[in-house]
Amino acid sequence: MRFVTAKKGERVFVGIMDEEGKMVLNLQSAAELLGKHASYLSDFLRCLDRGDSFLKEVEEILLLVKNTTVGNVYEDITKVEILAPIPRPRKNIFCVGKNYAAHAIEMGSEADIPKAPMLFSKAPTSVTGPDSVILNHSHVTSELDYEGELAVVIGKTGNRISEENAMEYVFGYTIINDITARDLQTKHKQFLLGKSMDTSCPMGPTIVHKSLVQDPHQLKIETKVNGEVRQSATTEQFIFNIPNLISTISQATTLEAGDIIATGTPAGVGKGFQPPKYLNPNDVIEIEIEQLGILRNYIEA
Amino acid sequence: MRFVTAKKGERVFVGIMDEEGKMVLNLQSAAELLGKHASYLSDFLRCLDRGDSFLKEVEEILLLVKNTTVGNVYEDITKVEILAPIPRPRKNIFCVGKNYAAHAIEMGSEADIPKAPMLFSKAPTSVTGPDSVILNHSHVTSELDYEGELAVVIGKTGNRISEENAMEYVFGYTIINDITARDLQTKHKQFLLGKSMDTSCPMGPTIVHKSLVQDPHQLKIETKVNGEVRQSATTEQFIFNIPNLISTISQATTLEAGDIIATGTPAGVGKGFQPPKYLNPNDVIEIEIEQLGILRNYIEA
Repeated sequence: MRFVTAKKGERVFVGIMDEEGKMVLNLQSAAELLGKHASYLSDFLRCLDRGDSFLKEVEEILLLVKNTTVGNVYEDITKVEILAPIPRPRKNIFCVGKNYAAHAIEMGSEADIPKAPMLFSKAPTSVTGPDSVILNHSHVTSELDYEGELAVVIGKTGNRISEENAMEYVFGYTIINDITARDLQTKHKQFLLGKSMDTSCPMGPTIVHKSLVQDPHQLKIETKVNGEVRQSATTEQFIFNIPNLISTISQATTLEAGDIIATGTPAGVGKGFQPPKYLNPNDVIEIEIEQLGILRNYIEA
Repeated sequence: MRFVTAKKGERVFVGIMDEEGKMVLNLQSAAELLGKHASYLSDFLRCLDRGDSFLKEVEEILLLVKNTTVGNVYEDITKVEILAPIPRPRKNIFCVGKNYAAHAIEMGSEADIPKAPMLFSKAPTSVTGPDSVILNHSHVTSELDYEGELAVVIGKTGNRISEENAMEYVFGYTIINDITARDLQTKHKQFLLGKSMDTSCPMGPTIVHKSLVQDPHQLKIETKVNGEVRQSATTEQFIFNIPNLISTISQATTLEAGDIIATGTPAGVGKGFQPPKYLNPNDVIEIEIEQLGILRNYIEA
């Protein structure tokens, strides 16, 4: 299942996108028409809070929608606004720095290849949806850069999670563009400010349940700017794989359902080019990850 | 007013601590007995969400409590559990690194004195209350350290805040112990993991409204471990003052009501001694800030 959070009029709902990306099944409308508990279906974090019962409830709704006449519960994708699947995370997004060797090298040298995962965060206020405009923040940065990344959505709270059990804690996957102001990243030493600008965390378009992803460590990832391929890699190039990241973070910090871990970006960021290819007004950035779709955003004019 | 969040039985309420720190006025009970809206008085973040009307409502409650017989709304401090004033922030806590020159030097050399604020974060899951036990996390660290800090609580949402207007966005002040695993801080390069361990952010005991603090840049701050003075400084030694920090963060990242900014720690952390004086099981850490009180915590046995 490919979950979306969408808005129709003033109403935000959780839905399921069809394979062609043309229709969304409005789970909240469906639950209401079926006389089922529906209020949690406005907020994907509340869905994740329900744990294993959430998927069972969705399956039951899908079955009833298929076999009965419940009224129109499908929304044309052009008639709704697709938001970030988790528009407001309950804490900063965990991000991994330099998790592809070629990217570590383009940012410095082989000495920059990390021996342990580098973890930093992006404020939840930075999240924005697919097809939205990324503010250029030209009053504070002249080095706005893109970073296409696979992100892991945690489905179950835990700590001291072993690598062996880590995948049980994954709900699914989405795409994140870890927009970065390179000048602020350098100026403030620690990455937080250069990574937390408003709209600097485009996310989506969907959260794909893990059952649909054969192997998250075998996904092609490609970033284009105005159609030009800038990043092209596969997640098998991770230095630290998903079980390692989940286990490392959770050793002393409780990971919670709804937490998001952006797994790092491959080589080909703007800063890696000579001369650098930073983002400009009106640029279109498209991040495509196999089995997950395309996350497209525009830089403010 | 010195606001607390406290727990009596299973019920969490916002209260006001008296000057002697012996009694707490239970604002929620008082509002209920007075027939006023009371549900928000279980959560200090919801209080802050009310903006300026929150203080007016509290003043009205105080006046009625003083002038009428409403039943017992005072709780003996020994009969309630004082929690962190904001037990669960809505995002990571903003933290400033090396904001006292002498501390920057003890962590390295004069070259470590920052030219711009270093901003990193602590996960909201790290927050714990006064008089609580700090987990020693001995399975991942052998270099647990303390950092006494003045923290600013933001009362109003804003962005691109000028230094001139910054103090309007402050609600009040509290104390934070920015507990740090020095080995994890080094190992993971960025500070997030070494700063986000569960219980590594003791906070409190109160949030003191800014009207009670004459000058937040003239406060003595002292940290003792088992009665031995380790840190002794004043906030006039800040490299970057509070208006500078608020303005710097908010230039591209919206600051929200309820956000917390820990302003950095003075010289005298465990790592600064030769040999280092890291924390050990059963240690008692007391951070005293003038006009704000004492934050006391214990290291897990």
